Amino acid sequence: MAFSRVAVIGLGLLGGSVGLAIGQALPECRTTGWDRDPDVRARAAERGLVGTVCETAVDAVKDCELVILCVPVGAMAAAAEAIAPGLGANVVVSDVGSSKQKVGELLRTALPGATIIPAHPVAGTENSGPDAGFAALFHNRWCILTPDGDAPPEATEKLGRLWTALGARIEIMDPAHHDLVLAVTSHIPHLIAFTIVGTASDLEEVTQSEVIKYSAGGFRDFTRIAASDPTMWRDVFLSNREAVLEMLGRFTEDLTAMQRAVRSGDGETLFALFERTRAIRRKVIEQGQDDARPDFGRADH
Amino acid sequence: MAFSRVAVIGLGLLGGSVGLAIGQALPECRTTGWDRDPDVRARAAERGLVGTVCETAVDAVKDCELVILCVPVGAMAAAAEAIAPGLGANVVVSDVGSSKQKVGELLRTALPGATIIPAHPVAGTENSGPDAGFAALFHNRWCILTPDGDAPPEATEKLGRLWTALGARIEIMDPAHHDLVLAVTSHIPHLIAFTIVGTASDLEEVTQSEVIKYSAGGFRDFTRIAASDPTMWRDVFLSNREAVLEMLGRFTEDLTAMQRAVRSGDGETLFALFERTRAIRRKVIEQGQDDARPDFGRADH
Repeated sequence: MAFSRVAVIGLGLLGGSVGLAIGQALPECRTTGWDRDPDVRARAAERGLVGTVCETAVDAVKDCELVILCVPVGAMAAAAEAIAPGLGANVVVSDVGSSKQKVGELLRTALPGATIIPAHPVAGTENSGPDAGFAALFHNRWCILTPDGDAPPEATEKLGRLWTALGARIEIMDPAHHDLVLAVTSHIPHLIAFTIVGTASDLEEVTQSEVIKYSAGGFRDFTRIAASDPTMWRDVFLSNREAVLEMLGRFTEDLTAMQRAVRSGDGETLFALFERTRAIRRKVIEQGQDDARPDFGRADH
Repeated sequence: MAFSRVAVIGLGLLGGSVGLAIGQALPECRTTGWDRDPDVRARAAERGLVGTVCETAVDAVKDCELVILCVPVGAMAAAAEAIAPGLGANVVVSDVGSSKQKVGELLRTALPGATIIPAHPVAGTENSGPDAGFAALFHNRWCILTPDGDAPPEATEKLGRLWTALGARIEIMDPAHHDLVLAVTSHIPHLIAFTIVGTASDLEEVTQSEVIKYSAGGFRDFTRIAASDPTMWRDVFLSNREAVLEMLGRFTEDLTAMQRAVRSGDGETLFALFERTRAIRRKVIEQGQDDARPDFGRADH
């Protein structure tokens, strides 16, 4: 038993990739899509991101068994409102947002008749918009489902099978725990990257041109992360405030300890940390979550 | 006029790459090399990192016109002491260390007869040791030379021509300014990456296994940087303390401002920063300092 009619709302990097991945992995599944931006709809139709790009959200979700909201977290309420009049009786509504507690509460309130199963495929690139999506985005990535107690287990299983078909691995998680885990593995790294790129571009003693010229020493990796979609990321921080502040507190405590070690010339403390962090890298590679080629393969050029 | 006899002291990632690059670009140049670790010497000889791997530092530098010290900054003094008895009268001694003020002072004191021209090719990967080097490491990367007033300009030019032959682009810089620029573009990004990877692996609420599973959300990029050589990086922070502390102070001020914006739900401040940092990324790519493929090409897998 699989979904045979799926609507994708929002046709950027994530929505486009979902549409393309379903088209490739499940060709018998009928996909419709909508984006509030007419230019994005036009480009999505040209690229064939979904089977049919509709002119309204209501048309897109009509007769669908599953609707996946692929919009920034801050646009979820408006997207829910737009699809509400078109939803059928037994529809499952899911999403791909990066914070899950707020999104779950919001969708359950906005769509009281629907089965809500929030989801978060931990995958993405620094690009955004209707040209950024590709079918392989979810291959070997984890998709975290955060159903609440009211969702029928068979609906959660069915959604899990869809994501498995798109190449993802499935994990069921409590939404609050999801938000804490992702604060560490995604939200804080992004906040730090945005901040250091901002710091570097505001200096007076070092010009922006120098920062760019000598970026191969580590800074360029941060610039990639800091090129991610500003709207999406603003909404992540606003919707996962508590977990982000909690984890940021831990990080700044640890950074203060490192600062003290640098100031006092405590090489042992520095070395002990630097030695320890290598082990994590090895496990990330062993578990297929990154490429083992040095410098992400840039060395081959 | 080019160097016809070059000695490479230290045969890890940088020394090995220098040896291989000279072998490829300047086959008429005779290269010798030495490393204090006999296993590294054996592996360097097997890989042919230099023309001749010598058993002592004195043998390696004998009759050489140029000696390049490719050891961690903290091992420079010992390396200088090891080569001193073998240096000829008109030798140029250079290095590839990541901090330049301390290294310059140290080499001028340790080797009073030699022409000292500190250098820093801004290139590297997270790997280290005699298996990590490759000839293309310096292609299109900047090599910063920080000669002091005593170095004859023709020696600096000659060293610049060598690096140009290895594929690098040359910049002459004051050593204090170098240390400030690299604190921003390399040292602080590394300190932050080491720290956040440490923070993540110490949490109790989130397991290390979860951190690794969901690392594709941004964290894995930090783990790559945090896999760099611990000895090298300890020495960088100990030898460039003032500039690192200065730049770390700027970063933590900016991070505190972002923390306040998250706490108060100030989406405008967050959005303004996130929008601004994209422009820097575009320039990094335009100037050939990074790859434009999304997610460093990992998306193609």
